[in-house]
Amino acid sequence: MGGGRAASVITLFAAPGSLQAGASIELDDAEAHHLRVRRGQAGQRVRLVDGSGTVGEALLEMRPAGIQAVVASVTRVDHPVPLTLAVGAGDRDRFALLVEKAVELGATEIAPLEAERAAAVATRLRERNMDSLRRRAREAMKQCGSAWELTLREPQRLEDFLGQPRTGAAWLANPEGEALVELKASDAVTVAIGPEGGFTESESKEFLKAGFRPVSLGPYTMRFETAGLVAMAAVWQARRRGEHG
Amino acid sequence: MGGGRAASVITLFAAPGSLQAGASIELDDAEAHHLRVRRGQAGQRVRLVDGSGTVGEALLEMRPAGIQAVVASVTRVDHPVPLTLAVGAGDRDRFALLVEKAVELGATEIAPLEAERAAAVATRLRERNMDSLRRRAREAMKQCGSAWELTLREPQRLEDFLGQPRTGAAWLANPEGEALVELKASDAVTVAIGPEGGFTESESKEFLKAGFRPVSLGPYTMRFETAGLVAMAAVWQARRRGEHG
Repeated sequence: MGGGRAASVITLFAAPGSLQAGASIELDDAEAHHLRVRRGQAGQRVRLVDGSGTVGEALLEMRPAGIQAVVASVTRVDHPVPLTLAVGAGDRDRFALLVEKAVELGATEIAPLEAERAAAVATRLRERNMDSLRRRAREAMKQCGSAWELTLREPQRLEDFLGQPRTGAAWLANPEGEALVELKASDAVTVAIGPEGGFTESESKEFLKAGFRPVSLGPYTMRFETAGLVAMAAVWQARRRGEHG
Repeated sequence: MGGGRAASVITLFAAPGSLQAGASIELDDAEAHHLRVRRGQAGQRVRLVDGSGTVGEALLEMRPAGIQAVVASVTRVDHPVPLTLAVGAGDRDRFALLVEKAVELGATEIAPLEAERAAAVATRLRERNMDSLRRRAREAMKQCGSAWELTLREPQRLEDFLGQPRTGAAWLANPEGEALVELKASDAVTVAIGPEGGFTESESKEFLKAGFRPVSLGPYTMRFETAGLVAMAAVWQARRRGEHG
């Protein structure tokens, strides 16, 4: 949908701290490969992003050491209002899809939870999958125009997650919850989403005890990655209403 | 998320018109296979759905002809308020994902459009992919608890689509559009979503001329299937507000 920028200007990743006007950025192997695939040429304008809120405009130059991006100007982008998805760590392919979409939809953090019903899923997300997920999140960031990298936590136990400090609204996706969500544009939000089959009764009670409010996100039973997507869309819409209302 | 029903009771598809109390439903090969995989046994209670708003409770019985479902009771479910996605027919795998999610999110119809920028996509959706997509939509219906089958149109030209009668709200997903969407719970909605790279300027003009209103669905550039998902979530939330507000 109207992805003009993504289609026309190549976006490359630069290490945080490296983006300053006049700096010459050496591209790592992955980015150099990406440039060759996209047929980048000397003199061409590219976009650089460091995932920490700095975006650069640069020109490609051929140097003896290889192709480099010479930074013409940089701009700073504010950190987005926090949006954390805490998600039962179910099937890793569905999880990977959720991670990609979370970047496009402006989530700032994903915390996979070792939920009881995810433990039985043979294809569940594990620690060894996290590096590949982080690469996928970075690619999505470059594509969609965001300047901030998604924080992707290691899978953790529910009690560890709930023991951490948290600010803002906290929702527990639940078919029997409230259907109306209201937020101010500046409200941080955490949304908890069960794995396939849902959180167990005792897990749900832990969330409620920790102050999470049950909210309903759609008309039918949703797979966990759909629920995550819909939650992010609902947060975005509610914040926009909170801005204007 | 809380998919208690989907996890515990097997749902089977029955031909429209076949679901009447006392009827004995012969299962087709696909459903009989599904039962074996799920280890369905004589005496077990199953759910039957015909995709046209009739849901049956039935018991499995062993008959000489094979396993049959004997209908104990039926209920009727109203047709949902129409929600049509008209989507540039891009990559068929991403399109398949959108179809599955559309069922879970209560869309009633998907109309793939032969958009200009989709024509260049080698993996684009074609007529020969439609049967497999319809099977996938049916499986999603059985899983998510909906009683109505999604109508999946053949890919068509934009001018043919716009030439057909249409009622209710009409939105064109567009990053520069309005961010606030308001609906009554009973409003039919059509949402148009471009392929990767978006609709061309002249295509967008055709939509606007036909009364479509540009709406913005998220903070960044979205892939077409993400935009579709987010649009459905926005419609659901807006209708819920329209019910209460």
